[in-house]
Amino acid sequence: MAPLAETSCDSTSLAFSADHSVINLDANANAAPTAMVLSAVVEAMTSGAGNPSSGHLAGDLARAIVERARDAVIGLLGGAYEDGVVFTSGCTEANNTVLRGLASHPARTLFVSAVEHASVLKVAQRLEVEGTEVRVVPVDAGGIVDLIELEVGLQDSRDRGLISIQTANSETGVIQPIAAIADLARRYGAIFHADAAQSFGKIRTVLGRGHGPDVITLSGHKLHAPAGTGAIVNGGAAIEYAPLIVGGDQEHGRRAGTQSVPLLAGLAAACKQRASALDADVATMSTLRDRLESSIRTLLPWTVVNGAGAPRLPNASNIRFVGVDGMALVANLDAEGILASQGSACSSRRPEPSHVLTAMGLSEAEAFSSVRFSVSPLNTHQEIDQAVQIIVAAASRLRGGL
Amino acid sequence: MAPLAETSCDSTSLAFSADHSVINLDANANAAPTAMVLSAVVEAMTSGAGNPSSGHLAGDLARAIVERARDAVIGLLGGAYEDGVVFTSGCTEANNTVLRGLASHPARTLFVSAVEHASVLKVAQRLEVEGTEVRVVPVDAGGIVDLIELEVGLQDSRDRGLISIQTANSETGVIQPIAAIADLARRYGAIFHADAAQSFGKIRTVLGRGHGPDVITLSGHKLHAPAGTGAIVNGGAAIEYAPLIVGGDQEHGRRAGTQSVPLLAGLAAACKQRASALDADVATMSTLRDRLESSIRTLLPWTVVNGAGAPRLPNASNIRFVGVDGMALVANLDAEGILASQGSACSSRRPEPSHVLTAMGLSEAEAFSSVRFSVSPLNTHQEIDQAVQIIVAAASRLRGGL
Repeated sequence: MAPLAETSCDSTSLAFSADHSVINLDANANAAPTAMVLSAVVEAMTSGAGNPSSGHLAGDLARAIVERARDAVIGLLGGAYEDGVVFTSGCTEANNTVLRGLASHPARTLFVSAVEHASVLKVAQRLEVEGTEVRVVPVDAGGIVDLIELEVGLQDSRDRGLISIQTANSETGVIQPIAAIADLARRYGAIFHADAAQSFGKIRTVLGRGHGPDVITLSGHKLHAPAGTGAIVNGGAAIEYAPLIVGGDQEHGRRAGTQSVPLLAGLAAACKQRASALDADVATMSTLRDRLESSIRTLLPWTVVNGAGAPRLPNASNIRFVGVDGMALVANLDAEGILASQGSACSSRRPEPSHVLTAMGLSEAEAFSSVRFSVSPLNTHQEIDQAVQIIVAAASRLRGGL
Repeated sequence: MAPLAETSCDSTSLAFSADHSVINLDANANAAPTAMVLSAVVEAMTSGAGNPSSGHLAGDLARAIVERARDAVIGLLGGAYEDGVVFTSGCTEANNTVLRGLASHPARTLFVSAVEHASVLKVAQRLEVEGTEVRVVPVDAGGIVDLIELEVGLQDSRDRGLISIQTANSETGVIQPIAAIADLARRYGAIFHADAAQSFGKIRTVLGRGHGPDVITLSGHKLHAPAGTGAIVNGGAAIEYAPLIVGGDQEHGRRAGTQSVPLLAGLAAACKQRASALDADVATMSTLRDRLESSIRTLLPWTVVNGAGAPRLPNASNIRFVGVDGMALVANLDAEGILASQGSACSSRRPEPSHVLTAMGLSEAEAFSSVRFSVSPLNTHQEIDQAVQIIVAAASRLRGGL
């Protein structure tokens, strides 16, 4: 991993410095803060900014930081959604808010793909118990949602639809056909929500009726912001949802609770940094990912890339090490300072096969033999080459049963 | 205000340094981070800690920080509630979670005091719309809940009760008779929740059936932690509530969403710092508050302290400047670098009289003439004396109508 930061904070250890041996290939779980992000957080904490709801000077300073963060999110999205950004504590809260807030009044049939994140699927389960009609749309072997099934469902449905389909998958990086889904939503009068936690800052998502999702949700910590930030972004047409958390008038009454000024300063810095180098960062991630993937595939021809046939995020690679216990591989890599994972972090402590991979038609054994790698622009070619050596050795050893 | 921090971060401005002219007498809205809190946040952001749900090294580091934060909260509470701390994004989310999670299955009659924070009262309103029986318990002129009304309500109620009464008020600092409420809860089989956002780290609250609340909620940013942290603490007996936010398995399935490791590191530092100096800090706050209050009362004998007859938090003073427009006074003080407020920050942008003060029997005009001051141990005697001069001059000027 590249040196994290030349900060002037000599008093703190910079574990992710050049000579630190950890190689983070699990950026989809958490991307380490950049120097700019760290410095923005420190500045916000020492600026005298107080509670953004306060009417005085400290409140003014805090509000300015919150509004700059809103602008930075919009800037990175590249749209004009000025009134449409509501900050939350993360994408999980954002998904809970949007789905609970939109599924009733009026009642809507909820369509989710089989490969959504737990924060969508668990809400769907709960809404179903409470009486919402929920349809799970299958995906093909490449991980792409079945648009015909979705359309049939929309046709059949008693109520109007609420579609919740992610822009891209956290485990495989597979990108969904967002424009086609948006077109279906428009034709059948459905609302289209897309969980964009993994794609935010990696691919451009156009929002708005007929062109893209009506509303997206996102999170900051996959983009080098500190965990604890998320947002709901409305794409133009007024999508009104009941707030999940009520109390004070923060976020125009759409999300109560004091905003975290230091975290939002960090999010703003992360968004600005990515926006200023989007194409270069995407190219870097893509080069690093391709290098990792093709090296492993060349050296271990018995490996398979899950979702390889589909469009994917530039930074993710989900590799099936046929005949290898993926959990053992992840543990072996961890012992050698390489961070990777099985499934998304939110589910990684459960000994169950990935629901994403089994939905793509993999057997449980195949799912268990798969490992997710995800890079960020902080990774280097040297790290990739070093990681490949270690991955190849460990996988070969484990496959041999030694 | 005392120097915030001798950090080694020369690159960032330390607005709250010794020669900075801002005097924060609005600590109940936001207490500035201490040097220890700042350093803990920076350390967490540069430690290599990742996503606490990840199974690898970066996950282990993150989990250790989260668990240390849990221990620090418990340490400051002074109890033994090891399994009972669930982290949230703040006290507003915590209050929403507890009330929504406990009011139904089985249905309970909800008792709230008339002086609760908006994050309790708004949830109560919403639950009432959804069919929960809600009773608002009045307070006396001192701001203390009417225990007879509460008991009559508990006797009359069809269902068992859920009592949600704060430990102390955010505007007046008035402390409620927690032990007596706990005793009523025990006698009538009710659950007792207390919003402890303002009292956490200022007065000790014993939890547990019959002795104190069954469950409390709290927030970090009134204790010098960054905003964005909160917790639900169970006081022993298993209080099971449905989670508000579902998804991943974080917080033992009781609150989904990736925990913010930097914020929790900051919360841990804030709790440890207060725990190590609790008596001294309380004495400092109490001395500063008394100095402020008695100076103003002496110099402006026509002022009245709201809730003066009741037990109060050591740091809060709500003063009625008879015949003065409180909002104008707050604005005048702001212009001279003194932070104060009318009502709680969460409601401060609404031009309505404080519901807390009107519940205590004040007229709208009396409520509008009242200003909240709240100190922290970061304030100094010199600041108080300087503030008193400015407050007295501004209030006299405004009273004269000049």
